[in-house]
Amino acid sequence: MRALSPDPEPGWESQAAICRSILDKSIVAEFRVPLNQLPSGPRLNVLHVPSESGLLSARELDITACDGTRLAEAIASGCWSAEEVTVAYLKRATIGHQMVNFATEFLADRALATARELDVYFKKTGKTVGPLHGVPISVKEHIGIKNRICHTGYVAWIKNVASADALVVHLLQKAGAVILLRSNEPQSLMHGDTNNNITGMTLNPCNTSLSAGGSSGGEGACIRLRGSAIGIGTDIGGSIRIPSSFNGVYGFRPTALRMPYQGIHTVAGGQEALRSVAGPLANSMDDLELVMRSVLDQSPWEIETSLVPLPWRSVPVQATREMTVGIMHSNGLVTAHPPIRRAMKYAQAKLEEAGIRTVPWEPYRHEEASRLLGTLFFADGAQSHRKVLAESAEPVHRLTEFVMTGARTLSFEEYWQCNVDREQLRSQYHQLMKQRGVDCILCPATNGVATRQGNNEYWFYTGLWNLLDQPALVFPTGLEVDPALDPADVDYVPLNENDRREHAKYCPEIFAGMPICLQVVGKHFRDEETVAAARVVESVLRA
Amino acid sequence: MRALSPDPEPGWESQAAICRSILDKSIVAEFRVPLNQLPSGPRLNVLHVPSESGLLSARELDITACDGTRLAEAIASGCWSAEEVTVAYLKRATIGHQMVNFATEFLADRALATARELDVYFKKTGKTVGPLHGVPISVKEHIGIKNRICHTGYVAWIKNVASADALVVHLLQKAGAVILLRSNEPQSLMHGDTNNNITGMTLNPCNTSLSAGGSSGGEGACIRLRGSAIGIGTDIGGSIRIPSSFNGVYGFRPTALRMPYQGIHTVAGGQEALRSVAGPLANSMDDLELVMRSVLDQSPWEIETSLVPLPWRSVPVQATREMTVGIMHSNGLVTAHPPIRRAMKYAQAKLEEAGIRTVPWEPYRHEEASRLLGTLFFADGAQSHRKVLAESAEPVHRLTEFVMTGARTLSFEEYWQCNVDREQLRSQYHQLMKQRGVDCILCPATNGVATRQGNNEYWFYTGLWNLLDQPALVFPTGLEVDPALDPADVDYVPLNENDRREHAKYCPEIFAGMPICLQVVGKHFRDEETVAAARVVESVLRA
Repeated sequence: MRALSPDPEPGWESQAAICRSILDKSIVAEFRVPLNQLPSGPRLNVLHVPSESGLLSARELDITACDGTRLAEAIASGCWSAEEVTVAYLKRATIGHQMVNFATEFLADRALATARELDVYFKKTGKTVGPLHGVPISVKEHIGIKNRICHTGYVAWIKNVASADALVVHLLQKAGAVILLRSNEPQSLMHGDTNNNITGMTLNPCNTSLSAGGSSGGEGACIRLRGSAIGIGTDIGGSIRIPSSFNGVYGFRPTALRMPYQGIHTVAGGQEALRSVAGPLANSMDDLELVMRSVLDQSPWEIETSLVPLPWRSVPVQATREMTVGIMHSNGLVTAHPPIRRAMKYAQAKLEEAGIRTVPWEPYRHEEASRLLGTLFFADGAQSHRKVLAESAEPVHRLTEFVMTGARTLSFEEYWQCNVDREQLRSQYHQLMKQRGVDCILCPATNGVATRQGNNEYWFYTGLWNLLDQPALVFPTGLEVDPALDPADVDYVPLNENDRREHAKYCPEIFAGMPICLQVVGKHFRDEETVAAARVVESVLRA
Repeated sequence: MRALSPDPEPGWESQAAICRSILDKSIVAEFRVPLNQLPSGPRLNVLHVPSESGLLSARELDITACDGTRLAEAIASGCWSAEEVTVAYLKRATIGHQMVNFATEFLADRALATARELDVYFKKTGKTVGPLHGVPISVKEHIGIKNRICHTGYVAWIKNVASADALVVHLLQKAGAVILLRSNEPQSLMHGDTNNNITGMTLNPCNTSLSAGGSSGGEGACIRLRGSAIGIGTDIGGSIRIPSSFNGVYGFRPTALRMPYQGIHTVAGGQEALRSVAGPLANSMDDLELVMRSVLDQSPWEIETSLVPLPWRSVPVQATREMTVGIMHSNGLVTAHPPIRRAMKYAQAKLEEAGIRTVPWEPYRHEEASRLLGTLFFADGAQSHRKVLAESAEPVHRLTEFVMTGARTLSFEEYWQCNVDREQLRSQYHQLMKQRGVDCILCPATNGVATRQGNNEYWFYTGLWNLLDQPALVFPTGLEVDPALDPADVDYVPLNENDRREHAKYCPEIFAGMPICLQVVGKHFRDEETVAAARVVESVLRA
């Protein structure tokens, strides 16, 4: 990687070292796994390491097996204290982090202090402070934490210290959450992978030779390892959903302007043509909804005025069973790998068996949409990113170069025309869903179940919905890659060069055992209906 | 005016003549006032000409004296037919137009056909088609009308024919409205005045030597003359509220993304940093609300997906009496003229008498806000406008040059920073209102009651609320300029150069008898509360 930038200026490495030192010091020594207890030799799947390490008691394993919803119930019923829950998760997170490097900083002191306060409050009043009372939550690094460095994956920004908690953190904590740790992200935040020059690469705990996805890859790995109960990521092209898909967890990208974004640090802040959105990653559908409700019930629009004043609505899942699901096996540009195709067919069959109406979802102007997305990502010719890179002279990652390739500074005329085109496409897609009587679309989340490290070059299965600003939820189907069921499609004729490149990435043996996720997409601003629809789809698939 | 562009290419005048011919032919001959019945000699106030012309029957005068709400009630009760209402308004509009040139095109055939259909439906079913059944509505020229030229004030765009009715027109018509005529607007749409090279200048019916305001000046004049019951204008810096203020009518600029904008033709479409918003001009508060409710009750977000799915809520006016009104006599940059200052003091005293709490509203970062507004209006260095001007080589109006002066093409870095600054200001202003316990702000709508023709150079009393995206409503106080009460403030020491220029524009004799309007501003997305607050303020002032 360093070879890409032949003469890095002295200095960036020492800057990066500051953050590594902060990370290192933030790990509570007693929670660290002694080297001799780490699994010896190469072990690709490290999911069982926490439970097999012997460092967690049976009770702690029970605690860390819970999703946030069950945890909150158990704490609210006095079954577990917030402090013991926090300690259990800190332990588990520390072990997990040692395996796959998902954290950029543990917030043990803050978390334990919060947990103790919560316990005191609960003891005194018999009440919880809110629906997340005692639930340990991790947040992606660029989500501001007061008085903490917020580097957003860039060495030059190591000098950036957040003056306040991001609004989403503030509201989660007000709802009772324990902010446990901060998680890793890639240089530029524009990779579907997680690697930077500061705290390095996050590995996929299902298979450490594979990418954890990105850009919220730290969250994806952390949640899968149950290093925290719930994670908060951000998503402008798939950054919540790609790591959800690669790690086999649940992830939700809500419609823009519902979840707070204030205090989240990004390059090219103020770029509003495509909005980055904060959202949850979790181990259950319940938890996704718990986060949305807990935050939106606090009227965040009273603080961040650009947010739309729409509280989280209750949508009965039962009513949703009458829905029609559009089935999009392929986006028409890049065909999904065999395991994903199998999962799509399986899901369709199960839905039909369950009496849920399905209709084929034909791609609509996807080529144009893909081009528009790429153009709007870097309307400034990626100058904002290049400037930050140049500032520290840190080496430029291959994927950073890859995404910025071809970026061209638009004229305002071109830029505004892109907005017009995007609006038109949004309206047309919406009309199409209505015309076809489709309530939600079931489709791949990613074209493959994962990629090798540093090799995720295709995100349009997620990015389309960012362009269209439609809520999209990724969930594990319960299926896994099986080389016997998912052989390579050797006769496949690629549709185009991208498809050829992506097709070549599939190898049944490499991906064997990886979880297979799919994506449910709803209509603009119908976030509640989207979650309800995904619940139905999941329950049918798991039945 | 033509002197500014020394060598206009041949052609633009013949293009413009096409539209004048369309306008001329659209006037129903029998509704035209015979020349010998027009008031002879100079007459500044032409408000009484329609009633004095002898062309309207007593019944027609009754009909055209009604606001839209009362009209709809009368038609729904079978008292008047939609057709006779349409005819009455077409007559009155024709007379009014002959006085002040507010129309760009009458839609008599369409209006009469619609009205007859409505009458047939009503006769057959005993029901109305919707809450606007039979209400004649005028729309600003750049709001698309199917198969009609939509030039947006620019000669080059005379070739632009709308392929469909704008969504707002479609929904108004679905609610029963009769689309009666299209109204005038200035070149570029960026004047607070109404004059273009196509259909020329609209005069102020209260005093034809004065500006009708702009850019929805055609609507302002039309509504004041009751040439239609309700008008639809657009507002990006005050374009609904300035003509409301100058003509003494009601005007409402809702929060962006509530009223449909699809199918409204603008230069620099896709510019989203400051959104132009459609909204009503009318002769009553009831009518403003009637329009909002009629449109939003049809879920326009199902068609124009960028709209926020917020139906119009009922806010009881009684509850609103508990409110606190922030009183902003001056924006700190340009002091309002004596009549406006008198009206502000009068309103404050009346509110206090009525037991409504008032607090002073101190300007907050207005200088910065004003700069930001100017920058965002023309982030492309006004190139989009200059290009359209160059295309036809039509003469450039003084006010067009005036607003574009100093426009500079921003870099994306600067542009996006402006968005960040704007968002920060919006949030801070919102917090300030909450901290000060202020529910709405009462302030001038314009620094003067009007200006001479072509001389409106200051819009920040309205523009501030566009920058902050707060709903704002202009209403007539019932007061008029009285030279005895409103002498020129000869000892006034201007705050700055703008203030000096604006101060010098006041002359009691010129503005004598002009209506005095004020503005009520609410919180972002609290459109319903803003209208309710304005109703309370108005009722107190009129008590």
